[in-house]
Amino acid sequence: MSDQLKQRIRIPRLRDKITDAATAAKWIKNGTTIGMSGFTRAGDAKVVPLALADRARHEPLKVTLLTGASLGGDAERQLTEAGALVRRMPFQGDPTLRAAINRGEVMYVDQHLSETVEFLRSGQIAPIDVAIVEAVAITETGGIVPTTSVGNSASFAILADKVIVEINLAHSLDLEGVHDIFIPKRRPLREPAPVLKASDRVGMTAIDIPPEKIVAIVITDRSDSTSPNLPPDEETAAIAAHLVKFFMNEVKAGRLSESLMPLQAGIGTIANAVMSGLIDSPFKHLTMYSEVLQDSTFELMDAGKMDFASGSSITLSPRKAADVFSNFTKYKDRLVLRPQEISNYPEIIRRLGIIAVNTALEADIYGNVNSTHVMGSNMMNGIGGSGDFARNAYLSVFATKSVAKGGKISSIVPMVAHCDHASQDVDILVTEIGLADLRGLAPRERAQAIINNCVAEPYRQMLKDYVAEANARGGQTPHVLEKALSWHVRFQQTGSMLPEAEVTTIKVA
Amino acid sequence: MSDQLKQRIRIPRLRDKITDAATAAKWIKNGTTIGMSGFTRAGDAKVVPLALADRARHEPLKVTLLTGASLGGDAERQLTEAGALVRRMPFQGDPTLRAAINRGEVMYVDQHLSETVEFLRSGQIAPIDVAIVEAVAITETGGIVPTTSVGNSASFAILADKVIVEINLAHSLDLEGVHDIFIPKRRPLREPAPVLKASDRVGMTAIDIPPEKIVAIVITDRSDSTSPNLPPDEETAAIAAHLVKFFMNEVKAGRLSESLMPLQAGIGTIANAVMSGLIDSPFKHLTMYSEVLQDSTFELMDAGKMDFASGSSITLSPRKAADVFSNFTKYKDRLVLRPQEISNYPEIIRRLGIIAVNTALEADIYGNVNSTHVMGSNMMNGIGGSGDFARNAYLSVFATKSVAKGGKISSIVPMVAHCDHASQDVDILVTEIGLADLRGLAPRERAQAIINNCVAEPYRQMLKDYVAEANARGGQTPHVLEKALSWHVRFQQTGSMLPEAEVTTIKVA
Ligand SMILES: CC(C)(COP(=O)(O)OP(=O)(O)OC[C@H]1O[C@@H](n2cnc3c(N)ncnc32)[C@H](O)[C@@H]1OP(=O)(O)O)[C@@H](O)C(=O)NCCC(=O)NCCS
Ligand SMILES: CC(C)(COP(=O)(O)OP(=O)(O)OC[C@H]1O[C@@H](n2cnc3c(N)ncnc32)[C@H](O)[C@@H]1OP(=O)(O)O)[C@@H](O)C(=O)NCCC(=O)NCCS
Repeated sequence: MSDQLKQRIRIPRLRDKITDAATAAKWIKNGTTIGMSGFTRAGDAKVVPLALADRARHEPLKVTLLTGASLGGDAERQLTEAGALVRRMPFQGDPTLRAAINRGEVMYVDQHLSETVEFLRSGQIAPIDVAIVEAVAITETGGIVPTTSVGNSASFAILADKVIVEINLAHSLDLEGVHDIFIPKRRPLREPAPVLKASDRVGMTAIDIPPEKIVAIVITDRSDSTSPNLPPDEETAAIAAHLVKFFMNEVKAGRLSESLMPLQAGIGTIANAVMSGLIDSPFKHLTMYSEVLQDSTFELMDAGKMDFASGSSITLSPRKAADVFSNFTKYKDRLVLRPQEISNYPEIIRRLGIIAVNTALEADIYGNVNSTHVMGSNMMNGIGGSGDFARNAYLSVFATKSVAKGGKISSIVPMVAHCDHASQDVDILVTEIGLADLRGLAPRERAQAIINNCVAEPYRQMLKDYVAEANARGGQTPHVLEKALSWHVRFQQTGSMLPEAEVTTIKVA
Repeated sequence: MSDQLKQRIRIPRLRDKITDAATAAKWIKNGTTIGMSGFTRAGDAKVVPLALADRARHEPLKVTLLTGASLGGDAERQLTEAGALVRRMPFQGDPTLRAAINRGEVMYVDQHLSETVEFLRSGQIAPIDVAIVEAVAITETGGIVPTTSVGNSASFAILADKVIVEINLAHSLDLEGVHDIFIPKRRPLREPAPVLKASDRVGMTAIDIPPEKIVAIVITDRSDSTSPNLPPDEETAAIAAHLVKFFMNEVKAGRLSESLMPLQAGIGTIANAVMSGLIDSPFKHLTMYSEVLQDSTFELMDAGKMDFASGSSITLSPRKAADVFSNFTKYKDRLVLRPQEISNYPEIIRRLGIIAVNTALEADIYGNVNSTHVMGSNMMNGIGGSGDFARNAYLSVFATKSVAKGGKISSIVPMVAHCDHASQDVDILVTEIGLADLRGLAPRERAQAIINNCVAEPYRQMLKDYVAEANARGGQTPHVLEKALSWHVRFQQTGSMLPEAEVTTIKVA
């Protein structure tokens, strides 16, 4: 036994549990419900799921897989291709799995990220049989120290009878101490979550479970998958600039201070670009109370703009990952990683007064938002934490580019083909064209603000025509129902939301 | 000065402020933003708004009116007919006003009921100029004792420079002590709201403002408007029975105790009937943590079934009002009335683990719910508190009759024409036909559960046909977009969602 392993597994008798991935995977039987670590590619179990996929290729093995959020690596692809996944919740982002979901082969339960463990804890969904948790170490008292994400790992380990731990040597022991594991009591005994500011620590630095529940330990040294982190393009830079200008006006109006309010930023390139846009802003002493900490969080810290960031995971580009994790002590006292139930807890989001920035696939003229379903039917990723934040935020911003697929899709449509976020939860809508401040507006006013500020021609004129026709019919939220989804239908039939005439014009131009 | 008035206005110098409604109304100028008491017909200011409507008939007077929720009496009709309302928030339920809203004449901002004062407090919507608050009394220290509702009255009075008080002698002084006025601090100084159970009292029994802000006091003696409280019909009784059976199964499965969890019930006849259905159930020691306390609350108390009820207002039928308010001390120690921000506070709803029962106008096969917009465009009432509760509840139930307008409208449709509640916020859907338990199901499974349990023929077969066609196209949430709203369009064109053939069949039958 190397000294390194002794440092990583501090209860000597637990070292007998060390085994290989295939042997550990034997604890998982056909029909098992697995709770696995992993949140936006960070801190996912890396080898046991691959061993499972191997087995599924040779024997009947169907499992239900719960995680924090999306996984990295190849696990979901391999499990999907092996036909091992029957049910998946609460989030995913893998192209192979997504396709299987959209074919109706995998039952995907797309949940608010704060709610999965509430359902489990109250027995309202089928219980976790086995938890698989990636860890930096197991402490002297049997505490599991998570790696780059907490996600749902703590509750999975607490609720499961059997826990498989993947000790990942690729993660530095420096990570120990960054986590804050606070688990709310069961209702009706629940008490307030005592987080009063983003930096408050209210729990333990490891997941406290009886060491007897650990049935197997697998040693790995695979790094987290990185995120592509595309550099800001012209559109995302414009979106960020509109938002910075809006915040400056709010400061001028006395509604925000120069440290704004704690920031949440959704996943994806747009949200990351928006946060990066704050580097060249006049704001100072920013804080984050978010889910995923992306490159922009650390760029803001490096630029001296951000004092503290609370999240549930750290997901970085290759370059930034190398930099951050080799200098982790430089950031550690300005970071905390929490269970996603706490990072996304409505109570805390409302109390802190979060500015939430999430991304829409499409929004409609009244500011209802679709973040999940392409053309109303096909799942992209999932609602994730966007509902936890948008509903409870001080200010809920949704960002999108005004068009997709080279202009053939307008991201602003007469009616969204699926609604994740009702208009009440959308205060600001911003595209590269401009920003619509929807606070305190009635639907007809929201339509004017959105069409005039967020949409480019020819879609702007098309939406004006729609509104004129709809208003003539009347209503609080006027619609021409037989045309409300006609843009989507046209896209499905012709490959473009533009009417024939417009396509020709554009082609000629 | 009568002794009665001295008891009602306990600071002698304030008695000089007593005036008539027309004089008090002069504090309201053209362009004023008014914050007025009133929540589901209870505790609304009764004479000053009528004086305002009088003035508006003779002089230019356009106002923005904020309340707790809907008003009783004739105020909204008169103000609307006089053309005095330019903007209204956050809720309404008046037929004349509704029509004006749907004609686009009044800008109606339909908000989550817990959020209005957050927007006001942070300056994100235009400030209240004048508050008009109905009161039982003004205390020795200038505290305003509300009447049958708290609603937004406390924050309106705190935030406005000028406060007009209507002392209503029709309300017994016995009401004093039933209110619990707790106002959260501004963010970022916000602390946890210390309500750990429905009966916790955490604030004061009156609204604490500097007495100097009271610019006028008007004495009235008009009773609250009552609610019709239709007796349960065959359908609402069936809905209640399905739900009671479901709860009994939950108790059997060990997920609920015989006292269930604190209950919230939405407005309207359906929610009231569901609550009444608990009278003949095996459950005991029930509690409510709700907005409106309707007849059913007191019937449950009388039947020895309910120990405590927390709400923001008491709205009763004529018979029940006479009974409850003349024996108020009998109920008082089992009641508390809170600001709607607290009755609907996400933090507390999540903490207590509420069972929320709200009503849908329509739901779709995937369990998305429309509670507000008839045929997608025309406002019925508003989202009210249903979003505060459904998102944060332990269990979110939506109830509706399976058809409306004598069967010409199916309340279960392929796609809702407006979405207030995303499928994630709808755990149980129940109609008189049956109950669909949607917890932990993926969209395609939800569609099966809803169609098989909640829909009657011929709509059931029509939905099965839709699903078959949609599934053939694929997707997580399969739709045939060009047909998704076709039932609504058919209703608009023919007066029925039934195709020609079916209408004939039914006529013949
Ligand atoms: C909405 C979401 C997919 C946007 O992701 P993004 O990377 O910022 O945005 P992009 O503009 O690059 O769009 C991503 C893809 O969607 C496509 N797209 C964008 N708008 C579209 C629309 N209206 N219709 C169809 N496709 C659209 C883009 O073309 C792109 O496709 P590609 O991957 O084939 O290039 C992503 O933010 C998401 O999944 N959000 C939901 C969950 C969430 O908000 N979580 C936050 C808290 S966890
Ligand atoms: C949805 C809501 C209108 C239902 O009210 P209700 O009195 O329980 O239900 P009813 O079945 O009697 O329906 C009320 C009316 O809507 C009509 N209706 C019902 N379903 C309909 C549908 N799918 N399409 C069109 N109209 C419909 C009914 O015919 C009835 O019309 P009428 O007044 O002309 O007779 C009411 O609960 C509401 O406004 N809810 C939103 C706010 C809320 O949930 N608040 C709770 C916390 S405040």
